[in-house]
Amino acid sequence: MRAVYFDGELQYREDIPKPQIESNESLIKITYAAICNTDKEIVKGYKDFKGILGHEFVGVVEESEEKDLVGKRIVGEINIGCNQCDFCNKGFQNHCRNRKILGMTHKDGAFADYITLPNKNIHVVPDRVSDMEAVFAEPLAAALQITNMYHIKPTDKVAIIGDGKLAQMITQVISLTSCDLTVIGKHSEKLDLLKRKAKTILLQDSKFENYFDVAIDCTGNSQGLKYAKDIVKAMGTIILKSTYNSEAMLNPTSWVVNEITILGTRCGPIDAALRLLERKLVSVDGLVSGIYSLKDFKSAFEDKNALKAVFDLQMN
Amino acid sequence: MRAVYFDGELQYREDIPKPQIESNESLIKITYAAICNTDKEIVKGYKDFKGILGHEFVGVVEESEEKDLVGKRIVGEINIGCNQCDFCNKGFQNHCRNRKILGMTHKDGAFADYITLPNKNIHVVPDRVSDMEAVFAEPLAAALQITNMYHIKPTDKVAIIGDGKLAQMITQVISLTSCDLTVIGKHSEKLDLLKRKAKTILLQDSKFENYFDVAIDCTGNSQGLKYAKDIVKAMGTIILKSTYNSEAMLNPTSWVVNEITILGTRCGPIDAALRLLERKLVSVDGLVSGIYSLKDFKSAFEDKNALKAVFDLQMN
Ligand SMILES: [Zn+2]
Ligand SMILES: [Zn+2]
Ligand SMILES: [Zn+2]
Ligand SMILES: [Zn+2]
Repeated sequence: MRAVYFDGELQYREDIPKPQIESNESLIKITYAAICNTDKEIVKGYKDFKGILGHEFVGVVEESEEKDLVGKRIVGEINIGCNQCDFCNKGFQNHCRNRKILGMTHKDGAFADYITLPNKNIHVVPDRVSDMEAVFAEPLAAALQITNMYHIKPTDKVAIIGDGKLAQMITQVISLTSCDLTVIGKHSEKLDLLKRKAKTILLQDSKFENYFDVAIDCTGNSQGLKYAKDIVKAMGTIILKSTYNSEAMLNPTSWVVNEITILGTRCGPIDAALRLLERKLVSVDGLVSGIYSLKDFKSAFEDKNALKAVFDLQMN
Repeated sequence: MRAVYFDGELQYREDIPKPQIESNESLIKITYAAICNTDKEIVKGYKDFKGILGHEFVGVVEESEEKDLVGKRIVGEINIGCNQCDFCNKGFQNHCRNRKILGMTHKDGAFADYITLPNKNIHVVPDRVSDMEAVFAEPLAAALQITNMYHIKPTDKVAIIGDGKLAQMITQVISLTSCDLTVIGKHSEKLDLLKRKAKTILLQDSKFENYFDVAIDCTGNSQGLKYAKDIVKAMGTIILKSTYNSEAMLNPTSWVVNEITILGTRCGPIDAALRLLERKLVSVDGLVSGIYSLKDFKSAFEDKNALKAVFDLQMN
């Protein structure tokens, strides 16, 4: 089958064998798959992964012992637990000590004609949700993990730092809380997409200091956390969504002095993401910057202005 | 009056004028004052402070408009709010935007014959609490700020990293929750003081990894946070108590991936600290490593094995 494969270098291949399902797994034919910042970080060396990239997808189940699934449009949770460790036993397969992660850790991903996934990772896409909406279910779930882990109040002053792919999802999700929301970004055209959901301001014009109850870093780099510290109030909360392949020079003493809470959040509830899409509470309009064939992976990965670059597996 | 004064260099002086009270303040004659790690960090350049050091003290009110206070043994909150800003208006003078801090920021401290403090900062010491116990009220309150800000459950596995002055207070406070408590330190003689309150282990013998629900850093340096990340569980909480005069190279992506919460905590409730001392739930036995006159400030500050070095203002 066709796939975008990474082994230190990113490459398009047509010689990859179609994966075989094990028991309790389904074989999924990919419809769309989208590029995430994490994919770009993996290409830079984050995760030390070798294999097929891609963890944001929508597809159709082609083979499964669970007959109800066959023929269904589905999306999937990307963390695959061992079902044996203490985290799995408590239902936290996202934190399994031996987890595989689709397109990231010991598991080939979705930039390919086919993937396999455990049936328990699979969520059927409701009829009212289109394929192009469904491909956003995984990043939307990651955005929802913020409200899953932290109570944002209607009266909170909240800042979102960043205006990229993930910030677009997060702004839509956080705006649903009715909080006083400000998005601080570097790109006026991306901020414009959010104008009906939040106040928006260019970083260069922002003069906030010790001001927000909550600051959410989705810059994708270490500057985000430093800036979040500057604008969040004493006793406030910084929520981290950025993953990147580097360390950062930081000042923990300032967190102690100001009694700041820093909360790391990662993958979230896919079922809740599908509910938001079904209720049309989140829109993906304007978020797809380009649709590519796998063969065109270079253009897809290199598109600097990209919001979401999507692979269409029906394209040659 | 006599004082230990810092202006880039630490010095003993006898020519400092006795401070004058303003309205709503009391004049306090110091009985004991103790050296804290923060004092040592200030001497290294943290805070850029010029003046009399010292913020842990017990004394007797000598002059006050509030006549009930005169002659009383007292301890004090060290943060002095402006009573005007948004934080003060909400009752959070600890985070006042214009705060003075005793012996740290725009306010002369307690390594002196006298200090002044606002009456609202003053807490009368109960009869059953000795002066030598009372001088621990401020660091004990800082320890209590952990349970004030975070719910430690009886079933939590909790690690305390460090075995110094603050770790001694924190271990005693956290042991009251009945949690499964382990202290990880570098000094067997200091760990020995805690054997009846917690399991203790030398850092070099510790093999914990992804294990504790809560890890509390009281090492006083940036290594503590890194080590806390190694031993805390995914979805666990790191509580920071260390303040030091440097930045640190850290890996926020690992906090995102493991959904770690990091919580900075600083000064705490002095009244609650006095209650613990009055109820004899915390002991200061063995925690005073030396009693010094102000004149002997060098020995007091240089004592490397020091748990608590205490100035006795009755000594010459
Ligand atoms: Zn992603
Ligand atoms: Zn597992
Ligand atoms: Zn102190
Ligand atoms: Zn104030």
